[in-house]
Amino acid sequence: MPSLQVHFGHSELRRVDTEGRLVVVIDVLRASTTIVTALDHGAAAVWAVGEPADARRLATKLGRSRCLLGGERDAVRIRGFDLGNSPLEYTPAVVGGKHVVITTTNGTRALIAGQRGAHTLCVGAFANHGAVLLRIREALRVGRDVAIICSGSDGRFSLEDATCAGHFVRGAQRIRGAGGTPAINDAARTAAALAERYPLGTARLFRDADHGRTLRNAGFARDLVACREVDRYHIVPVLARGGMLISTR
Amino acid sequence: MPSLQVHFGHSELRRVDTEGRLVVVIDVLRASTTIVTALDHGAAAVWAVGEPADARRLATKLGRSRCLLGGERDAVRIRGFDLGNSPLEYTPAVVGGKHVVITTTNGTRALIAGQRGAHTLCVGAFANHGAVLLRIREALRVGRDVAIICSGSDGRFSLEDATCAGHFVRGAQRIRGAGGTPAINDAARTAAALAERYPLGTARLFRDADHGRTLRNAGFARDLVACREVDRYHIVPVLARGGMLISTR
Repeated sequence: MPSLQVHFGHSELRRVDTEGRLVVVIDVLRASTTIVTALDHGAAAVWAVGEPADARRLATKLGRSRCLLGGERDAVRIRGFDLGNSPLEYTPAVVGGKHVVITTTNGTRALIAGQRGAHTLCVGAFANHGAVLLRIREALRVGRDVAIICSGSDGRFSLEDATCAGHFVRGAQRIRGAGGTPAINDAARTAAALAERYPLGTARLFRDADHGRTLRNAGFARDLVACREVDRYHIVPVLARGGMLISTR
Repeated sequence: MPSLQVHFGHSELRRVDTEGRLVVVIDVLRASTTIVTALDHGAAAVWAVGEPADARRLATKLGRSRCLLGGERDAVRIRGFDLGNSPLEYTPAVVGGKHVVITTTNGTRALIAGQRGAHTLCVGAFANHGAVLLRIREALRVGRDVAIICSGSDGRFSLEDATCAGHFVRGAQRIRGAGGTPAINDAARTAAALAERYPLGTARLFRDADHGRTLRNAGFARDLVACREVDRYHIVPVLARGGMLISTR
């Protein structure tokens, strides 16, 4: 019976947690929603890097003119960068054909931590919930373990990532493969309880969540609407050779 | 309005999370239940230390004959120690008048991490739930912030600690002081949701919890019964000068 584990945060991740697994990284507010949006809107690839200096170096290496530098620190655009971390900025006109190099406080770090030994690493959000759920079910059906990593906020547990993870858990539990329902861990149980409390698409989730309130107070209320929309996109960002995320269907 | 924050795990704790606060450390299975039991049963003090070698050194310093060495690694008693980590071993006849030096995989480490700058550090479990809840309410009433630290299991989120924390959160929310209800964080919200799902005293909690099943399979089923009993004791272990936990009422 394959296992479906959720991890709240990435600082305690060990290689055994990701090795050989389908790894899904979630940072609903906002990195994973932004990455899904950029790739659906025609970006050639998204490169998730740890620090602004890494982003600048990589953009130079890839060719600055075909790149966009994106990301935030303390929720606002990094000085000298083309874009912040709002999904609304990543329109088809802006990102079409471009390589987006992005660095954020939490999401890109979780993406880097989640890669170790993973069979496949992908990016999940409410925006591509159904598409990611299909991948999770597919993995479990062939006996592959799944790890869902909630990025959290500055090393803290975050309600919205855990709730999004919980909707994946509940969706995965609804099918029964040949091996029965997947074995889950305590964090997956807790995430599923949150998903029961916060149905898909509810505005209440970001009203309750600490980071939702922070973003609203910082003037990003429209981002919250975009980040809670369910299944707007049908792609799954997947980590490809060389470290770039590409769009898959 | 004072704040009531829950932390899942202690590895990401910063000094600001504990400084000036009433800090409650929870390791339901089993360190915090064992510490409460030992102190209620007449132990002079409990010393929580990080490693077995530290425990041996401290016992020598305190005088080996007045000490008991207790604790576990991988749930079993440490070689050469007097006691393991089962609350059932800590009877009045065994611990009366003794200094218990204890080291466990998770609980004692969380106790050490939680001390930094804390106004008061105490130990909470189901076994002394009502007594600890009174302290939390008292602290909030005088405007003191409260931090509840869930030890977790080897750096992992654990269902039983979060649920116990959630019962403290729900109990604290039921009173309204002059400043209104306390401000809570995402982890406290989640813990409260778990407390709603797992009422005080339910056997289902440890049946669901990963570490509950591990202990049952390791032959500690009777410990589970002891650890879920609510308000058997009315003392609160509090950290005193010099680093020892003493019984307070």
